[in-house]
Amino acid sequence: MTAPPPRFRLFRGDRPLDALPSDDRGLAYGDGLFETMRAHRGDVPWWEAHWARLAQGAARLGLPLPDPAQVRAEAGALLAGDDAVLKLVVTRGSGGRGYAPPRDAAPTWLLARHPLPPAAPEEGIVLRWCRTALALQPALAGMKHCNRLEQVLARREWDEPGSADRDADEGLMCSTEGDVVCATAGNLFALRGGRWHTPPVDRCGVAGVCRAWLVPRTQAVVVRLSPEDVERAEALFVCNAVRGILPVARLGRRRWPPHPAVDALRRALADAHPGLVL
Amino acid sequence: MTAPPPRFRLFRGDRPLDALPSDDRGLAYGDGLFETMRAHRGDVPWWEAHWARLAQGAARLGLPLPDPAQVRAEAGALLAGDDAVLKLVVTRGSGGRGYAPPRDAAPTWLLARHPLPPAAPEEGIVLRWCRTALALQPALAGMKHCNRLEQVLARREWDEPGSADRDADEGLMCSTEGDVVCATAGNLFALRGGRWHTPPVDRCGVAGVCRAWLVPRTQAVVVRLSPEDVERAEALFVCNAVRGILPVARLGRRRWPPHPAVDALRRALADAHPGLVL
Repeated sequence: MTAPPPRFRLFRGDRPLDALPSDDRGLAYGDGLFETMRAHRGDVPWWEAHWARLAQGAARLGLPLPDPAQVRAEAGALLAGDDAVLKLVVTRGSGGRGYAPPRDAAPTWLLARHPLPPAAPEEGIVLRWCRTALALQPALAGMKHCNRLEQVLARREWDEPGSADRDADEGLMCSTEGDVVCATAGNLFALRGGRWHTPPVDRCGVAGVCRAWLVPRTQAVVVRLSPEDVERAEALFVCNAVRGILPVARLGRRRWPPHPAVDALRRALADAHPGLVL
Repeated sequence: MTAPPPRFRLFRGDRPLDALPSDDRGLAYGDGLFETMRAHRGDVPWWEAHWARLAQGAARLGLPLPDPAQVRAEAGALLAGDDAVLKLVVTRGSGGRGYAPPRDAAPTWLLARHPLPPAAPEEGIVLRWCRTALALQPALAGMKHCNRLEQVLARREWDEPGSADRDADEGLMCSTEGDVVCATAGNLFALRGGRWHTPPVDRCGVAGVCRAWLVPRTQAVVVRLSPEDVERAEALFVCNAVRGILPVARLGRRRWPPHPAVDALRRALADAHPGLVL
């Protein structure tokens, strides 16, 4: 018998760590960023896009990043040729008590592999509305940072007594001003008047890697959408870099049959990303 | 020679842990709460108030808490009779990938001791204005949760090239609507017309333990304050449970001489909390 392959690797700067230090600022303040990536046969087809988003977030937070070549090599070793979900977390490293970032801290970084999620159901997913709203914070909007209590609270709503659609696959979140922003773990596209629309992510929400792939290819209009706009759409889908395009079959009482425009995008995505074949 | 005393203790549920698991939700999402307490001769005079705030936050987040008697006993052992700052972090424990909280996770909790901060300067502290604003999020307001990137960004402003008042002790943060909320690590009180005023913390900000001690004793008016209200105040102080009442000597160009009303409150606090003697 051989030992099971490791599920994660942990580093500070360029050196392996046995365990996460208790004074890590990721734990203390969520002072970090993460990427969740689809790996195919040991490689991450969208690596460059994920790293670019990570680097953009790190620049905004003033967070030092590890050497990308080392991270990619360690990711390859951890994946060992497999299909998997690869999560990378980068934090500002160890720090004393207090919010002031240490000036010379080496980043802590963690690579973890997870099993692939189930394939998107052919008939589409079920959505629900979340009551938890997203606060408007341009200083953090767009980034995939580790301050995710809003998403945790939204996902908890499924478990409330008397909650409708407890089997929903995803939930849509609105901003505190009432416009629809995204799903808890994906971006939203709505077909209206034959044209794709997706909400902006400059005041809240995450600038998804799959969203960034789709916006130019669909010539999507980036515009605020009301809940009514979404419910009246001709077709809807949720997307992220791990599961690709998830057609929406139902939201509350509104149902959508499969739509050829969504099917066409899913085929185009499958051609572009070998891990997201249909 | 004897080994130095341990600086922290880590647990999952009621059992000690050697190291923080890499899949802790505190690290992944800031899915946790913390308390920072002033310990005096091995005891925490405001323990009950800290635990009450922690429990209130845990109820709002649906976060399981460890046994308070065990936490207090472990805190006593860690403090070993000393004066120190005691930090308690409680997270939702280990969880898989994804925002949905696990239903049966035991909380992870960490107790860490830190040296006492310097005493408040007799002449008062220097404040600056922070550009980073606090987003309005009633679902999280008041809690001392671990999503603290706003405070980290605000504290980073000190290091910007050309930044004024780089030696400032604290910074005042406004909400995204422009009203003054708090300092990065403390609440704010302003004397106006002979009466103390402090901003509400129901849309953003933290409901500080020292603030809660002060509001009834000062019969403070809890009301939104503009930057002009603050600059025109007759006296100002910042407070938290670790440093007590910090009189403000200067904010930008505005200077305040010591004020007898602040001195009187500092004496009252010193009588009430043996760790905060003058």
